[in-house]
Amino acid sequence: MSAYHPLNETEAIEIARKLEGVFQPDAKLACREIGDGNLNLVFHIADPAAQSSIILKQALPYAKVVGESWPLTLDRARIESEALILEGSLAPGLVPNVYLYDPELALTIMEDLSDHVIMRQGLINGTRYPLFAGHISTFLARTLFFTSDLGRNQQEKKLLARSFANPELCKITEDLIFDDPYRDADTNSFDESIRDEAQALWNDGELHLEVALLREKFLTHGQALLHGDLHTGSIFITPESTKVIDPEFAYFGPMGFDIGAVLGNLLLNYAAREGLDDADAEREDYRAYLLNSVTDIWSQFEAKFLALWNESGVDRMANSAPGYKENYMRRLLQDAIGFAGCKMVRRVVGLAHVADIDKLEDAAARERAQRLALRIGKSLIKLNRRVVSIDQLTDAVHSASAAAKA
Amino acid sequence: MSAYHPLNETEAIEIARKLEGVFQPDAKLACREIGDGNLNLVFHIADPAAQSSIILKQALPYAKVVGESWPLTLDRARIESEALILEGSLAPGLVPNVYLYDPELALTIMEDLSDHVIMRQGLINGTRYPLFAGHISTFLARTLFFTSDLGRNQQEKKLLARSFANPELCKITEDLIFDDPYRDADTNSFDESIRDEAQALWNDGELHLEVALLREKFLTHGQALLHGDLHTGSIFITPESTKVIDPEFAYFGPMGFDIGAVLGNLLLNYAAREGLDDADAEREDYRAYLLNSVTDIWSQFEAKFLALWNESGVDRMANSAPGYKENYMRRLLQDAIGFAGCKMVRRVVGLAHVADIDKLEDAAARERAQRLALRIGKSLIKLNRRVVSIDQLTDAVHSASAAAKA
Repeated sequence: MSAYHPLNETEAIEIARKLEGVFQPDAKLACREIGDGNLNLVFHIADPAAQSSIILKQALPYAKVVGESWPLTLDRARIESEALILEGSLAPGLVPNVYLYDPELALTIMEDLSDHVIMRQGLINGTRYPLFAGHISTFLARTLFFTSDLGRNQQEKKLLARSFANPELCKITEDLIFDDPYRDADTNSFDESIRDEAQALWNDGELHLEVALLREKFLTHGQALLHGDLHTGSIFITPESTKVIDPEFAYFGPMGFDIGAVLGNLLLNYAAREGLDDADAEREDYRAYLLNSVTDIWSQFEAKFLALWNESGVDRMANSAPGYKENYMRRLLQDAIGFAGCKMVRRVVGLAHVADIDKLEDAAARERAQRLALRIGKSLIKLNRRVVSIDQLTDAVHSASAAAKA
Repeated sequence: MSAYHPLNETEAIEIARKLEGVFQPDAKLACREIGDGNLNLVFHIADPAAQSSIILKQALPYAKVVGESWPLTLDRARIESEALILEGSLAPGLVPNVYLYDPELALTIMEDLSDHVIMRQGLINGTRYPLFAGHISTFLARTLFFTSDLGRNQQEKKLLARSFANPELCKITEDLIFDDPYRDADTNSFDESIRDEAQALWNDGELHLEVALLREKFLTHGQALLHGDLHTGSIFITPESTKVIDPEFAYFGPMGFDIGAVLGNLLLNYAAREGLDDADAEREDYRAYLLNSVTDIWSQFEAKFLALWNESGVDRMANSAPGYKENYMRRLLQDAIGFAGCKMVRRVVGLAHVADIDKLEDAAARERAQRLALRIGKSLIKLNRRVVSIDQLTDAVHSASAAAKA
C-alpha cells in the first residue's frame, strides 16, 4: 500500500521539523498553504523567531486547469526534484536549494524564496531587472551544454535521458502548444472579439508547416535536458537575484525550446503594453528595455555556450569539424525564434493565457495587445528557418508593431 | 547470485527439449555450436528424424573484434529479442520467429534459418534476389513508421524509446562509424597501399562537417526504433525469402540510418566488383542489378511509407500540414544517402571491413575496389544535404566509377 496522501498543515510541520540543520528542535513553526491547488500543495513553513523558512511542495495526483481536472502522474515530483538538483549543480545559485525529496509522498522540500517575486508580475509592474539577461543566459548555457552530447559523455547522457522520460507532461505541451491552437479545439480559449484571428490560425497552411516541423523537433530532437516550461511565471526574481523554479516538464528535447520560452514571454509583455496608454512615455522605454533584454539574452547565451564548448567540449567531431559550431548555433537561434513564436500564439488563443495580457481591464486595449501578440508570434514562426541573426527578431517585432498601428 | 554462465551443448539441448510444441519428448536431438565466438554462442539444435530445428543464441559478456576483447552488456540479448518480437509483429515473415527469451541466461531461442544464406555471401556469389527490394522496403517502411511519432501514440513511443536505451552498443557505432575513420585512430585498419586515402579522410574539413552533422543526428534524433546494424551480414536470404536478424544495436534514432545501411552495403558490393576482371560481361550487368535495387528500395520504401502515413497516421499536425510529408521524405532521403556514405567509408579504413572487398585476393584488385568504395562513400556524404532525388545517388555512383577509371 502506498503511503501517499495529500498532507495537511500539521503533517507538513512535522515533516519540516525532522529536517536536519534547518529549524531548532523547539522552534515554534508557522505553516500556510500558499499553492493554487491546481497541481500541487505548497506549504510555507517558518520559524518567525529565527527568521528561517522553507517551502514544502507536494504533487497532487491530478491537474486542474480552468475547471477541468485530469489525472497526472506523481512521478513529476521526482522529475522536478532531480532536475532542480542537477540544474543547481550546473548553474549554482540560479535554482532553489533542495533539502529533501520523498518519493512516497511526492514531496520536495526546498529553499524559501518569499523575498523574490514571480517575474511575470515584476514585468507587469514595470520593474527592470538589469542582471536578468546575465543570469538566465548562464542558466541556459550551462544546463543545456552540460546535459548535451557536446558537454557530457554520450553514454551517460543516454542514461540521464532515460530517467527523464516524461510522457505525460510532454503530452500537455504537444497538445496545448503544438496542436490545439491550429484547429478549432475544445480546449482553446479566446475572446470572441478575436475569432477572426483564431480562424486565420486554423487556416494558415504556411504556418501549419512550420509548426509541424517545430512539433517534430519537440517530439524527436533529444539535444539536452530542458526545463520544459521556462516562462516568466517559472522564474522568481529580484533586481539582484534570479531563481528558476518548477521544472516538472523537464525532459530531453531541443535546446531552442527553453531559450524560446524566455524570449517569447518577454515579448508577450511587450505585446501587452500595446494595451497601455499610447501617450505613456514610459511605455516605449520599457519596450526598448524588453527588446534589449531579448537580444542580450541571446548574445550572452551564444557567447557563454561557445566558451563552454571551447573549454569543455567532449565530442571530438563536434569540437573540430570546420563550420560545425557556426552551423549549430545558427540552428539553435532558428529553433529559439520558432519556439518563441509558438509560445506566444498559444497564450492568446490556447487554453492557458498570461496575466500580462488577460489582466488588461479595458476590452479594446486587451484586444489590441492580443492582436499584436499573435502578429509577432506568427511572424517569428514563419521566419524561423530563414534566421541568421538575432536582429531579424527585433526587425520582425518592430514591423509587427508598426503594422498593428497602421 | 546470477544464474548466468555460458552454456555447453548438453545444457543447450536440455533447454531446447523443454520448449513446448517444438520437439517430440523422445526426440534424439543433435547440437552444434556454430557461432564465431566473438559476441555470442549460437547453437543449432535439430531433430533430424522429424526435420525440425531451432537456433539458441546466448550473449557472451564481452565482445571480441580483431583480437581485442572488451566487456559488453548482456542486456543486449533483451534488446535483441524484444526488437525481434516487435519487428515480427510489424513486419510479419521478415524476421525469425522468437520462441523464448530467458533474461537470466541472456538467451533467445528462435526459428532456424539454415535454408537461407547470409546476403553478403549471396551477393559475393553473384546471386540475384528479385524479391529483396520489395521485402526490405516493407520491413523498413513498417518498422520505422509504426515506431515513430507518425504511426504510434507519442506517449507510448516515449516509453518504448526508454526501454530501448542502448548506450553501450550505440557507442560502438559512434566511435567506429562517426569518429575513428576521420582521425588517425588506433582502431583503424587499412592496407598500407591506400594510406594516402586514409590521410585524405583525416584532413578533409568539408567531409568532417557533414560527418559531424550526421553524427549529431545519430546521437540526438529519436525518430523511430532502428535495427541499428542493417548491413547485408544481418540479412538471411533466398530468392523467395528475406529475414532480418541480429537487431542487438536497436535504439531510437534517425530512420535514414537503417535505410542508408542497406543502400551502402549494396554499393560496397558494387565497389568490390571493381576488383573483378574488366572484360567480365557479367560484371556491369550485376552492377546494374545492384544499382537498380538501390533505387528500387528507396522508391518502394517511399511509396509504402507514404501509404502507411495516409492510412494510419496518428499525428494530426504531421498528417495535415501542407508540404510536410514532402519535406519529411526529402530529409529521409538526404539522411539515407549521408549515412550510406558513412557506412561505406568505415568499411574500408575503419576497424570492421566487409568480405565483399577483403576477400579479393589480388592486392591491386582489392586496392581498386577500396579506392572506388571511398570515392563513392565520400561523394554521398558530401552530397547528402543537397539531395532532392534518388537519381542523384545513381549519378554520383556513375561519376565515381568513371573517375576511378580515368
